[in-house]
Amino acid sequence: MAKVAILGFGNIGSGVLEVLRRNAESVARRAGQPVEVKYILDVRDFSASPDAKLFTNTIDTILADDEVSVVVETIGGTRFAYPYVRACLESGRSVCTSNKELVALHGAELIALAKTHGCAFLFEASVGGGTPLLTPMHQSLAADVICEVQGIVNGTTNFMLTKMEKEGLDFDAALRLAQQLGYAETKDPGDDVDGRDAARKIAILASLASGRQVYPQNIPTRGIRGVTPADMAAARSLGCVIKLIAWARRGADGQFAAGVEPMLVSCASQLASCEDVYNAILVKGELLGDVLFYGKGAGKLPTASAVVADVIEALKKGAQVHDTLYWRAETPAEGMLADPSPAAWYVRLDGLDAAKAAACYGPCEVLDGAANALLVYSATPAAMTAAEQAVQAAGGTVALTLKRLTA
Amino acid sequence: MAKVAILGFGNIGSGVLEVLRRNAESVARRAGQPVEVKYILDVRDFSASPDAKLFTNTIDTILADDEVSVVVETIGGTRFAYPYVRACLESGRSVCTSNKELVALHGAELIALAKTHGCAFLFEASVGGGTPLLTPMHQSLAADVICEVQGIVNGTTNFMLTKMEKEGLDFDAALRLAQQLGYAETKDPGDDVDGRDAARKIAILASLASGRQVYPQNIPTRGIRGVTPADMAAARSLGCVIKLIAWARRGADGQFAAGVEPMLVSCASQLASCEDVYNAILVKGELLGDVLFYGKGAGKLPTASAVVADVIEALKKGAQVHDTLYWRAETPAEGMLADPSPAAWYVRLDGLDAAKAAACYGPCEVLDGAANALLVYSATPAAMTAAEQAVQAAGGTVALTLKRLTA
Repeated sequence: MAKVAILGFGNIGSGVLEVLRRNAESVARRAGQPVEVKYILDVRDFSASPDAKLFTNTIDTILADDEVSVVVETIGGTRFAYPYVRACLESGRSVCTSNKELVALHGAELIALAKTHGCAFLFEASVGGGTPLLTPMHQSLAADVICEVQGIVNGTTNFMLTKMEKEGLDFDAALRLAQQLGYAETKDPGDDVDGRDAARKIAILASLASGRQVYPQNIPTRGIRGVTPADMAAARSLGCVIKLIAWARRGADGQFAAGVEPMLVSCASQLASCEDVYNAILVKGELLGDVLFYGKGAGKLPTASAVVADVIEALKKGAQVHDTLYWRAETPAEGMLADPSPAAWYVRLDGLDAAKAAACYGPCEVLDGAANALLVYSATPAAMTAAEQAVQAAGGTVALTLKRLTA
Repeated sequence: MAKVAILGFGNIGSGVLEVLRRNAESVARRAGQPVEVKYILDVRDFSASPDAKLFTNTIDTILADDEVSVVVETIGGTRFAYPYVRACLESGRSVCTSNKELVALHGAELIALAKTHGCAFLFEASVGGGTPLLTPMHQSLAADVICEVQGIVNGTTNFMLTKMEKEGLDFDAALRLAQQLGYAETKDPGDDVDGRDAARKIAILASLASGRQVYPQNIPTRGIRGVTPADMAAARSLGCVIKLIAWARRGADGQFAAGVEPMLVSCASQLASCEDVYNAILVKGELLGDVLFYGKGAGKLPTASAVVADVIEALKKGAQVHDTLYWRAETPAEGMLADPSPAAWYVRLDGLDAAKAAACYGPCEVLDGAANALLVYSATPAAMTAAEQAVQAAGGTVALTLKRLTA
């Protein structure tokens, strides 16, 4: 009999309890033993709950009970989660979490701590919700080298962009709709729409792919606030859609570059057909070529089921899982992990006619439609910055720049 | 140091040797020990090979050497593979295979044998080539119940259908092209075009999803020989494409039905955008909802890298992997695992005008275009059989029937 403690009884935490009970029999068979929740840590009052006797308001109760072998962390953030998870791992208890901020900021340290203390730190649910992604990446691709990851990892912005694309909503209307449906935060939707959530997720994927901690703060990150329905129409005329893409790529020097930005995505790409709140992540292996994982990126029971699958894995494999699920801590990189390679670019201009602005760029074409925009065929980011200064010297401003995703 | 033997030095077997050498360092780190090929079993003459000293022509050499802990089976078929794999598992050696016929016919027995003898029988590469599929299904979905699997699991026919769809080739021309490119067998392409390869793969997926051995011979199987460019055009007018779909579904009674057949697939489905030799498999979990796995379904190094990932997993988890990767043997089902549910159907007629044939069916519409075809809105397979008899009584024949895939 394995005893589990759940830290934080919100949406995902309560889902974990539900999944463990609903599928108790099959979980027990697969874990090799019954799995039972012994404690739930939450400072709120659950005295009226049928499970009132499980609740505690201090981590010490859990740390003092040797029966507890696995801890589920679904508090979120790092203020409490980080010290609690550290304490659990230091006591040799495996931890399974859905907390992407915790993993993106402290993953290398917590993995190392787990290895040292003979337990596992697992976080499949931190990226892609319930969609299997990290496990296939480190386990099924264990004989390969991952050279690139690119994908749609934020369901909220993908929903908004889909509504803008299909129904002509502008950013504000799309955001209101996402808030009404509960997909976006009402108070501050910035984590989603400004790309910070996606940056945390690609930081985790880039860390796993590169073998070194990649921090979100070193990833150039831009959200979707600047995108208009006119941009959508112009993209369509180029056979593309606009998607918020999180990407990480191994360069010729072995160093990884990464970014989060709205991009032009060819309709021929599998990523283009990922709509609404779905996530799609393309992983490129040197041997394997392209593999795509697609599914809902959020949701209580899907995410909770991924956490419970990790609980099973922790019970079976323990610290051994970190032979493949592993990256090293490094001093945070100075500056940004930008990619200096040339690309094609969509450029929308204000205050200067696109036909006139074209002279500021290399080979390019003026796009038809309402957007006063150019397609630049091939330029480096440095050349694009120089061209932007020329546009300003000519009295205009660059309102939006979108790189074209290379397949 | 782990010593491995490779049985069968063809395309995949030689790829396994190449991957183990090329990525020796990372494989060693992930396996927790170096992994070295000690024997290669092949009856052909490799005396001029730089690895000549590794070759043996009898399984007894391998079975007599206690150092060999993992055996890779890439012979194919069952005549030699089956007794050799049995012998290896009975001696406590783990076996990793890409052999779908072996798994589809003997999976339950070989898994049980592995459990009994404390070793692992792994076969990620048997479905989807290198695309991770079985591992995420049994491990990442370990807390869930899989209720349906549907997908494109044969790259050859998907390539042919794509050429028929995009370039208007007929079946014979598409087959010749596939043969020229090495995608289809020259002598007998029947395993691919008649759906038998897909039936073996869905038998494996259905066995894993249902927990009971599902045999290919109990799966109603129909290939793509009857599909014409006129059918493609008619499908397009319905917002669909035609794909060879392998499917398995849990019914209300808990029993699985399964099939392999060309189907109408809505262009809105992720499966519709899977083209050329790619595979795409949609897995539906009760908790998780839809997850799609997409990648190349074949190829030497992708498939070999999946086999090597299994070797690493066998070394780390051993027999414990079968707590999740598992199904029971059962007496083969009598008759076919057909699905009696109503569906929409495309029907092309010979010798009787579609407008006249419409009277033989329930609510339906005559389709425009060259195909002399109907769309039947909803009918059971039994009703479709009765209608076909009525068509024959009226002097016509049903040339092609395609069920519409429900999402």
